[in-house]
Amino acid sequence: MNDATRSEHDLLGDRDVPADAYWGVHTLRATENFPITGTPISTYPHLIDALAAVKEAAALANEELGLLTPEKAAAITTACHEIRSGRLHEQFVVDVIQGGAGTSTNMNANEVIANRALELLGRTKGDYRHLHPNEDVNLGQSTNDVYPTAVRIATVIAVHGLLDAMAVLQDAFARKAVEFRDVLKMGRTQLQDAVPMTLGQEFSAFAVMLDEDRSRLAEAVELIHEINLGATAIGTGLNAPAGYAEAARRHLAAITGLPLVTAANLVEATQDCGAFVQMSGVLKRIAVKLSKTCNDLRLLSSGPRAGLGEINLPPVQAGSSIMPGKVNPVIPEVVNQVAFEVIGNDIAVTMAAEAGQLQLNAFEPIILHSLSESVTHLRAACLTLAERCVSGITANTETLRATVENSIGLVTALNPHIGYTAATDIAKEALASGRGVAELVLERGLLPAERLAALLRPEVLAGSGTPA
Amino acid sequence: MNDATRSEHDLLGDRDVPADAYWGVHTLRATENFPITGTPISTYPHLIDALAAVKEAAALANEELGLLTPEKAAAITTACHEIRSGRLHEQFVVDVIQGGAGTSTNMNANEVIANRALELLGRTKGDYRHLHPNEDVNLGQSTNDVYPTAVRIATVIAVHGLLDAMAVLQDAFARKAVEFRDVLKMGRTQLQDAVPMTLGQEFSAFAVMLDEDRSRLAEAVELIHEINLGATAIGTGLNAPAGYAEAARRHLAAITGLPLVTAANLVEATQDCGAFVQMSGVLKRIAVKLSKTCNDLRLLSSGPRAGLGEINLPPVQAGSSIMPGKVNPVIPEVVNQVAFEVIGNDIAVTMAAEAGQLQLNAFEPIILHSLSESVTHLRAACLTLAERCVSGITANTETLRATVENSIGLVTALNPHIGYTAATDIAKEALASGRGVAELVLERGLLPAERLAALLRPEVLAGSGTPA
Amino acid sequence: MNDATRSEHDLLGDRDVPADAYWGVHTLRATENFPITGTPISTYPHLIDALAAVKEAAALANEELGLLTPEKAAAITTACHEIRSGRLHEQFVVDVIQGGAGTSTNMNANEVIANRALELLGRTKGDYRHLHPNEDVNLGQSTNDVYPTAVRIATVIAVHGLLDAMAVLQDAFARKAVEFRDVLKMGRTQLQDAVPMTLGQEFSAFAVMLDEDRSRLAEAVELIHEINLGATAIGTGLNAPAGYAEAARRHLAAITGLPLVTAANLVEATQDCGAFVQMSGVLKRIAVKLSKTCNDLRLLSSGPRAGLGEINLPPVQAGSSIMPGKVNPVIPEVVNQVAFEVIGNDIAVTMAAEAGQLQLNAFEPIILHSLSESVTHLRAACLTLAERCVSGITANTETLRATVENSIGLVTALNPHIGYTAATDIAKEALASGRGVAELVLERGLLPAERLAALLRPEVLAGSGTPA
Amino acid sequence: MNDATRSEHDLLGDRDVPADAYWGVHTLRATENFPITGTPISTYPHLIDALAAVKEAAALANEELGLLTPEKAAAITTACHEIRSGRLHEQFVVDVIQGGAGTSTNMNANEVIANRALELLGRTKGDYRHLHPNEDVNLGQSTNDVYPTAVRIATVIAVHGLLDAMAVLQDAFARKAVEFRDVLKMGRTQLQDAVPMTLGQEFSAFAVMLDEDRSRLAEAVELIHEINLGATAIGTGLNAPAGYAEAARRHLAAITGLPLVTAANLVEATQDCGAFVQMSGVLKRIAVKLSKTCNDLRLLSSGPRAGLGEINLPPVQAGSSIMPGKVNPVIPEVVNQVAFEVIGNDIAVTMAAEAGQLQLNAFEPIILHSLSESVTHLRAACLTLAERCVSGITANTETLRATVENSIGLVTALNPHIGYTAATDIAKEALASGRGVAELVLERGLLPAERLAALLRPEVLAGSGTPA
Repeated sequence: MNDATRSEHDLLGDRDVPADAYWGVHTLRATENFPITGTPISTYPHLIDALAAVKEAAALANEELGLLTPEKAAAITTACHEIRSGRLHEQFVVDVIQGGAGTSTNMNANEVIANRALELLGRTKGDYRHLHPNEDVNLGQSTNDVYPTAVRIATVIAVHGLLDAMAVLQDAFARKAVEFRDVLKMGRTQLQDAVPMTLGQEFSAFAVMLDEDRSRLAEAVELIHEINLGATAIGTGLNAPAGYAEAARRHLAAITGLPLVTAANLVEATQDCGAFVQMSGVLKRIAVKLSKTCNDLRLLSSGPRAGLGEINLPPVQAGSSIMPGKVNPVIPEVVNQVAFEVIGNDIAVTMAAEAGQLQLNAFEPIILHSLSESVTHLRAACLTLAERCVSGITANTETLRATVENSIGLVTALNPHIGYTAATDIAKEALASGRGVAELVLERGLLPAERLAALLRPEVLAGSGTPA
Repeated sequence: MNDATRSEHDLLGDRDVPADAYWGVHTLRATENFPITGTPISTYPHLIDALAAVKEAAALANEELGLLTPEKAAAITTACHEIRSGRLHEQFVVDVIQGGAGTSTNMNANEVIANRALELLGRTKGDYRHLHPNEDVNLGQSTNDVYPTAVRIATVIAVHGLLDAMAVLQDAFARKAVEFRDVLKMGRTQLQDAVPMTLGQEFSAFAVMLDEDRSRLAEAVELIHEINLGATAIGTGLNAPAGYAEAARRHLAAITGLPLVTAANLVEATQDCGAFVQMSGVLKRIAVKLSKTCNDLRLLSSGPRAGLGEINLPPVQAGSSIMPGKVNPVIPEVVNQVAFEVIGNDIAVTMAAEAGQLQLNAFEPIILHSLSESVTHLRAACLTLAERCVSGITANTETLRATVENSIGLVTALNPHIGYTAATDIAKEALASGRGVAELVLERGLLPAERLAALLRPEVLAGSGTPA
Repeated sequence: MNDATRSEHDLLGDRDVPADAYWGVHTLRATENFPITGTPISTYPHLIDALAAVKEAAALANEELGLLTPEKAAAITTACHEIRSGRLHEQFVVDVIQGGAGTSTNMNANEVIANRALELLGRTKGDYRHLHPNEDVNLGQSTNDVYPTAVRIATVIAVHGLLDAMAVLQDAFARKAVEFRDVLKMGRTQLQDAVPMTLGQEFSAFAVMLDEDRSRLAEAVELIHEINLGATAIGTGLNAPAGYAEAARRHLAAITGLPLVTAANLVEATQDCGAFVQMSGVLKRIAVKLSKTCNDLRLLSSGPRAGLGEINLPPVQAGSSIMPGKVNPVIPEVVNQVAFEVIGNDIAVTMAAEAGQLQLNAFEPIILHSLSESVTHLRAACLTLAERCVSGITANTETLRATVENSIGLVTALNPHIGYTAATDIAKEALASGRGVAELVLERGLLPAERLAALLRPEVLAGSGTPA
Repeated sequence: MNDATRSEHDLLGDRDVPADAYWGVHTLRATENFPITGTPISTYPHLIDALAAVKEAAALANEELGLLTPEKAAAITTACHEIRSGRLHEQFVVDVIQGGAGTSTNMNANEVIANRALELLGRTKGDYRHLHPNEDVNLGQSTNDVYPTAVRIATVIAVHGLLDAMAVLQDAFARKAVEFRDVLKMGRTQLQDAVPMTLGQEFSAFAVMLDEDRSRLAEAVELIHEINLGATAIGTGLNAPAGYAEAARRHLAAITGLPLVTAANLVEATQDCGAFVQMSGVLKRIAVKLSKTCNDLRLLSSGPRAGLGEINLPPVQAGSSIMPGKVNPVIPEVVNQVAFEVIGNDIAVTMAAEAGQLQLNAFEPIILHSLSESVTHLRAACLTLAERCVSGITANTETLRATVENSIGLVTALNPHIGYTAATDIAKEALASGRGVAELVLERGLLPAERLAALLRPEVLAGSGTPA
């Protein structure tokens, strides 16, 4: 451990920072000002990489426009490369919840990049006369265009991870849908026995829900590709020379491989959080449906003896510290909880977005924090659900078939043939007497036995065929 | 229909109002400015009564302080009496969602009372030289103390209605708890069979939850008794003479029969919505637990054949337009939906409270609207649930007992006697083989038959006794 | 008033209904079961019309498939036509918050249509032997496909009303953007003076936000065009003959003029509320940004003397019952409150959607209720804001220009020319001394006067030009 | 690094765990099953300490009842002591978001304590024949009583930290209220100039709000002292011998120094999350008002030249990477963001509580996680706001006084003396002409100069005096 320090200066005066720190006085003050969560921004590697990408693109644009010497540009871009390859992340130390609209995050990046670039130029850290965090690394930029742009790139990359995880889960459900395609069971509406279906249809619905959600998520992430780099402080582009916005966008698109576009109205784009609210809303939609799906899995696997007992989730751990042999649906349960967190995060994003004033939303750090948490945790939840639960689900086929044969709901299928009124009478008697629907229909001579059997064939009941 | 009009004047100029309208130009403009919901504030009779009570108390205080002639005071208080006995409510026409921090509601009251008082004095409506909406009815007052005070009184009265309804529901559950006290069943944790209990214990928990919620609601409504009458515009009491605040409070307490207290710091009280946020939070708590209870009722009554089938909810309507004989748990379902609405309303209250600025919260109208809706709908939901559902619930006693006898969860009771490890083995074999726990314990000679029978006695299992 | 009654029969027994009521026993029980809000479903005329459209389409499909006689089909379609032209709406009496997944709404429609059709056939109301609510009007249908389909059509129509209102508001902002295009002012970030811009740019951003939100809303409403008619009870299409789903969709598209499509997976479509969650999320986004816009309008018009005083909102009513001459921003305030309501409604929709179980979401009535409220109130809010506020806004041009000339933020424009460090010193001195930036720059000889003047030209500062 | 392992056995089979790990097979599986956040439960030291306290109390109760040998009890209690003194926390490795209702957290504690106790007994880790995680450490317990009890104790302790921090912040505001007690300024309602007050009154309101919130928080934490230890699995107390619940409570109260009480109805207490919902609601209330306070601080300090400029927040860091000299209200901004997070967390708690089913709420881990985050971050936010912002606030006294003297709102004070109608005319002319209220009143001869001066004395205007 080294106690050596160097002195740095800012608007408020001089401060000592550790000599070996790549960050400087602005970062130091920020860490003192925001001792909120104890979690540094390095916990979001996608954000650190995105910041480095933005700074690299800006340096290349500035070099191209003759505003930055090739030597400085080379030092900056090399430093950014290193960061994007995973180095120096531990130097990004400001708290994930911070005031200042992201300025501290941006200054943390400016300082780390400047000091690493100084090293590459053979200078010592803090010798900002040769390369300055603000005047060189931040040249032509403002936190108000750099930070949202980096947040967007980080979000796009994280969302692609979620899309992939959702595809894995969708595939797990789809494979079960095929496996269970002939397993007849009672469908239920309002938790009451309704009409027959197959377990495959039930699992197919889970897969389709995910497919639709993936489409919505893919649409929402499209909007995130619109950036405001070149807007500088409030969108008027003050201090960004002609051509800069387009050059910076072009370099950034090349570096990230993303089809980025510059917003048509930069004043609007600089203050607007609409795309984040939309993204959060779609994440909430995904959470709602994942939670509904997990509720169903837990309900269908309830038991083993006093529940529905239709399916079995694979046991993944002992369920109780007191009840021997008990196994619980812990994987769906953890997914439910992630869903609740995501729904809560959506409210945080909503309030932060609503609180924006005039030319800027100062609360983007909590928006980033909430979105990152939601995307990352949903991704983990989908993978865990796919791998540790869905792929190992088995069906209690005999139990399921018995519930159909025993069901009063069969009478619905006879509705068109014996009428709603007669069918209601049969249903009432079946319920009161405990007898079967078919038995009662035959006893009353409402349908001939052969016709009845045809109407009650599984394929007919589950809708994949018509009676002969 | 009468097309006659009278002309009134305000800050913005002259306007014609219908000659027979008790409201005047301020109300007219407000109805034009806020065509939002189409629902007038008369939809909240408690609020109209409370406004009249406040105006009456103010008039009495002003008379007492010599600021209002006995003749005017008598006319105003008579008009207020009439309103509190249910008359003229249809004259309160401004929209429930309105800008202006309640000014339009206050002015609507000032105008209606002034014009009715003018009539009582033998004058024509609109002849404000003899009694003025602002200078007499509103004397010593501001919307900013009148409106919150009226909202508080209205809320207190509405909440008492909810407390009563909750007591009815609690009683319905408590009576079922007694009725079902000997009905043995399997308890469940995480939807998995756990250990035995009685259905009476289950219903008793529902009753206790309501009892606790009633205590919390009673505490929250206490806070609502603190008023800021006398604060006038911002809490400094400008224009309210010495002694006014206390006299007005005393009269208002007498009129309403409520133990009202004047806030110690009127500047704070005039801008603070904390008591409303607290009330809304408690209403949300009630909603959460009512919803949980209804979820349980729907789950326990699932079936009739492919569900848990433990209890029967009384049928109150045919359940399906297509499925004959189907009966659905429609009463718990409607209660669930009220709960969701209340939870949503809490967010509206939260945002409105957070949006207050400096010396006033301009958004109290939506707070009133949301709270009124929540309290009123919860009251209806509790009564409906008690009368149309809980009081008619029956138990499928035999089915319930069978699930206990058949249960693997019995093994937990043997845990202290045969050990967690041996018990786990028994549980695993029971699950795999479909055999019973008692049978396996005897077969393995782990306990003598008599001892086993004693340990598995219902009273012991459900915790109301100890083994002999 | 007529006390005559007729007797009707259902699963639970016989009940008398008023002889002149078009609704019947199912509706009667529903009104008794759900005394929650006192607001009948007729409060949503779009829903009533949509129900009639669905019933008409179903009748035409059934006639086409030979399942309904031309005579019955004609009577049903005529009854539906009448409803869609505004008649009989008062017969739709069930509560907007109801249990039963919409069954009561569907049965209310079935009964009203059946009884009107019976009249058209020369029969008396209640003579269901000749035309039956369930067996004829509901033929081939279930609440579970009829109700969501009608809710979707009603939502589509209501949303088009909102889209139009948003266009009106956008246009009002855009016209002001043109009017104010040369009005220079200080832009602000984090409520601190930042750099210059024009008031036109500020209003242009409001217009662009609405334009983007309209695009999102148009996308979200596309998803609502996917219907599940033909799914019957759970999506398996039980009792709907081959060809029915497509014929019904075709007729419904023709009747409504909407490009409706049948969902590819009807089991999924019948239980899924994803499109409603998405719609609600987009409505929330609109609310968030409208609220932000109104916050800005209120802030910019604060004063008249101790506030920012940059713009004047047109006075629309006297602002205070105590403070003479005070005028408040009541129109933005009412819009803020609608926004809070919409954000709260989104939570109600979220919870209702999450609570769906297995093959159906029983809580669609509260989803419909919440969405209808949000769409309708947002529409009113946009129109009110456009007409009663934005279109009359004026600018305090001289005040605005003075803040620019007096601003320390000007120094940012000099940043590229004198450096961030020198600029920081100028800024500090300006703040401490109260002197002007230009004055200090000249005094220190940092830039020649002519160059300085060029750099500080309004067009340059506001980003619409470059220095000569 | 040591690759040695030991083998452990559970319901699902054998697994190797690191030989030096204090946790065992149950913990291992949990870490594999819940790779959600990457944050282990050791991030909540209060929870780890509370778990150890509960286990210690249980061991002492079991020893007292003769169920545990003194030797085992001594080993267990020593291990618990060590944990409570800060050791072994890094062994608590399961994820903060986990399925299983807290079972994994409880088993993690059982295993760590058992293995440390084994060491203390001179045995090797994993040699559970001599002291078993379930049969000894968990004796007479279930996750379902241990976990909620520990969560409650941890919450109580964390909340006391928050109460202290709120007191610090309240005190900071109160000291400023004294400092600013004579600083006259314009009060504002709806962002429009209202009537005069003192800056001290404004800051006093901030202090009073905190004081009230502290009272509410103190009430809410009272409810958290009710525990269900002794309830075991579902509240029936199965396997907990007579006297155990009371003995365990007594020991736990002694160990923690908290006045814990055992719930009257343990079945209800085991499934109920009402106290957590209440706590979360109160935290939300605190967040709402802190956010409102910070909004006000940011607004009052807006400027430096184009804003209200009434107060100055102490500069704590440079505000911009592009705008030299800009200083932003970053401390209030970070507090706003914590408030948004807390409000979002309340929704997560709400949904988790609502999702509880039958005899248990399986989602307590997310409730704990959300509450812990809210309490901890609010505490940090209060301290930061007090120390880095409020205590250094200064007033622009001259500016403030000028706004009063220049104000039209003065006319309200003349209302009782010249009438609302005349006052309105004065206000209108003042606004139109830019002239002063006093000047116009004198010009019109409405009041003699001396009387006017008396009415406009600062003490009168701000409500702390009456005119001579």
